[in-house]
Amino acid sequence: MSLHDEMLVMGDRAVVASRALAGLTSRKKNAILEAMANELDDRRTDIQAENVKDMQAGREAGLTDALLDRLELTDARIDAMIKGLRDVAVLKDPVGTKIARWMRPNGLEILKMRVPIGVIAIIYESRPNVTADATGLCFKTSNAVILRGGREAVYSNRIIADVLQSGGERKGLPPHSIQLVETTDRDAVRELVQMVGRVDLAIPRGGEGLINAVTEMARVPVIKHYKGVCHTYVDEAADLDMALNIAENAKCQRPGVCNAMETLLVHEKIAPEFLPRLGERMKKANVEVRGDEAARAILPDAVPATEEDWHAEYLDLILAIRVVPDTAHAIDHINHYGSHHSDAIVTASETAQKAFRQKVDSATVYINASTRFTDGAEFGMGAEIGISTDKLHARGPMGLEELTTYKYVILGEGQIRE
Amino acid sequence: MSLHDEMLVMGDRAVVASRALAGLTSRKKNAILEAMANELDDRRTDIQAENVKDMQAGREAGLTDALLDRLELTDARIDAMIKGLRDVAVLKDPVGTKIARWMRPNGLEILKMRVPIGVIAIIYESRPNVTADATGLCFKTSNAVILRGGREAVYSNRIIADVLQSGGERKGLPPHSIQLVETTDRDAVRELVQMVGRVDLAIPRGGEGLINAVTEMARVPVIKHYKGVCHTYVDEAADLDMALNIAENAKCQRPGVCNAMETLLVHEKIAPEFLPRLGERMKKANVEVRGDEAARAILPDAVPATEEDWHAEYLDLILAIRVVPDTAHAIDHINHYGSHHSDAIVTASETAQKAFRQKVDSATVYINASTRFTDGAEFGMGAEIGISTDKLHARGPMGLEELTTYKYVILGEGQIRE
Repeated sequence: MSLHDEMLVMGDRAVVASRALAGLTSRKKNAILEAMANELDDRRTDIQAENVKDMQAGREAGLTDALLDRLELTDARIDAMIKGLRDVAVLKDPVGTKIARWMRPNGLEILKMRVPIGVIAIIYESRPNVTADATGLCFKTSNAVILRGGREAVYSNRIIADVLQSGGERKGLPPHSIQLVETTDRDAVRELVQMVGRVDLAIPRGGEGLINAVTEMARVPVIKHYKGVCHTYVDEAADLDMALNIAENAKCQRPGVCNAMETLLVHEKIAPEFLPRLGERMKKANVEVRGDEAARAILPDAVPATEEDWHAEYLDLILAIRVVPDTAHAIDHINHYGSHHSDAIVTASETAQKAFRQKVDSATVYINASTRFTDGAEFGMGAEIGISTDKLHARGPMGLEELTTYKYVILGEGQIRE
Repeated sequence: MSLHDEMLVMGDRAVVASRALAGLTSRKKNAILEAMANELDDRRTDIQAENVKDMQAGREAGLTDALLDRLELTDARIDAMIKGLRDVAVLKDPVGTKIARWMRPNGLEILKMRVPIGVIAIIYESRPNVTADATGLCFKTSNAVILRGGREAVYSNRIIADVLQSGGERKGLPPHSIQLVETTDRDAVRELVQMVGRVDLAIPRGGEGLINAVTEMARVPVIKHYKGVCHTYVDEAADLDMALNIAENAKCQRPGVCNAMETLLVHEKIAPEFLPRLGERMKKANVEVRGDEAARAILPDAVPATEEDWHAEYLDLILAIRVVPDTAHAIDHINHYGSHHSDAIVTASETAQKAFRQKVDSATVYINASTRFTDGAEFGMGAEIGISTDKLHARGPMGLEELTTYKYVILGEGQIRE
């Protein structure tokens, strides 16, 4: 069978599974999640044996230590996968809830109901725990998944997907609810994201290259979890102690994640007072500071910032600083150079707050708080499949609700249109 | 300037306009809509003079009478465009409303706010009134539009877009809020739907060819307003008089629209009693009936239905009929052959109703009512830009709310992440 036909068969099976999944009660789904978790626990030795194969192949292929670390399934990581599935079981199931309900003058009752999306394709890179985490969230929302992991993790992904499917089947998981694309043929991704009518949504998770490649090839809808070039703007009316704490937290608390700050903007009136204090804090935290001319006039040790710095997602202890004449310029900078992810203003001025929240075109806009809070758990969603940097369907942290869509159910008593 | 660069400039201008549009109050937007309506009224002679050029060119190019009819801007059609803009002015503005609001234990207040999508590209075919109708809805929701109409209507579209923009500007419409792609170069559509970062959403409106071409080329999100292969399933527990009225209404009241019925499914137990009565009604209404073997055993005059009939969107006085053994088979037929638009069941059985509403994977599922109600006005939305047959972001009738997205605004008092 050609790769094309093989993928179509997989797509057809996923569609059949998705129809069966739509009929499961929340209670049944939770029992299946529990069964999946138990099976992961019972078969951890097998899982780790497969993972060793990936690790060996990775070492032979010369993967970096950082990549090998991401690939390894330690006991703690398997525990985390198990806990993840149990946590998802506890969350409220959005499927079948009413979003709205209204009556029309002709007596028709319109219900807007939450329903599963259908078949979701997840395309991801080396971390094999994504196989369990993404599956748990998609399954809880009654979606079938087709997983395509990185080639470095093929043994690990295969056994995790098998364990989840077979463990779940004992409690009534429909066949083919969880399928893994096992071939390492790169064309499989193309086939996958072009299966209009079989795949309802593709979610690429990984680096810029993967996301661009998927978007380029896709014919089905894609929701991107893209980079975070996040800003903190310290306005002239900022409480400077608050601004220092927020800036330090946004930059340093976990610099390698998408909601960490990359660029700090500061009002020119407050810069002479604020920047020296910020510079000291950054020095203590080993942060390399890069600045525009005005910033470097105050912080002479700063490296000159170039155009690339304003676009950069460092994911590291580096901070770009720019002095701006007013809030409007800060907003323009953010909309131009940012990635529409998470941006903060620190100010006591209601006028500045209002302009910022209204005009900054980002998924998440913070007033007097750190950008580090953009996260499903911090938002109270319980879990997230990622943070969407797209504008349609889901924006910002994507939890269970964002893995559903809706349909209208209309209850009549024989109404016809006049 | 190359077409590519020309389109990028247009995209940049739209982005700038969209930022300014996001700041307009509802009151101001309504005054602008009124000014647009007045300008259309004042300049109707000019508009009709340009329309005559399109009509002449159309006749010379040998357009069919049906196409020429769609192209013509009669007084009544200009009145309808004017009324459409005034009607939209009266509708509630969703932009800036709160979708949800909650507090986190750390005191952060999370607001989920409705915001404009940004820049919307509308790609449509010959009806020039779409230029005004789509613009009104997009503008009311503070979106900038880039319009690409059919080449047959280029004179009409150009003047309507000009009139709307210049009329609106008198009351403060930002420059370039309404832009029309004037070149007839087909590559312009490709450029338009590949402007990631400048165009946030593309909505193709027209025939299957146009929609497929746009989807194929697009790199930006597309919401499709595709065909309606709608079904009515008459269950064994149906009230037959109700079923006859609903079937006749769904088929005959306006056969050329997407929410009209194309295939009727009937339970085998009720078919011998129901089909002869339906056959008579269809005969009176001049409907050509096509049936499967079981249906033709009861209605011998029916044309034998082929596989293509189950896929067909006739948009005409033709009806395909299939006899099914039970509700499950009806649901399978609909999910397999339908277009996920609008499907109805007629039954008094709560079990059948429940299975149908849960398992039919369509935007709109009717219990004991005609599929003809799938329509923004009938749903009480006031107006619609179309009926989405996609699953993400918007499904079914798309009104003003569906032309918005959301952002999170988070209000803090200096919170940092531990």
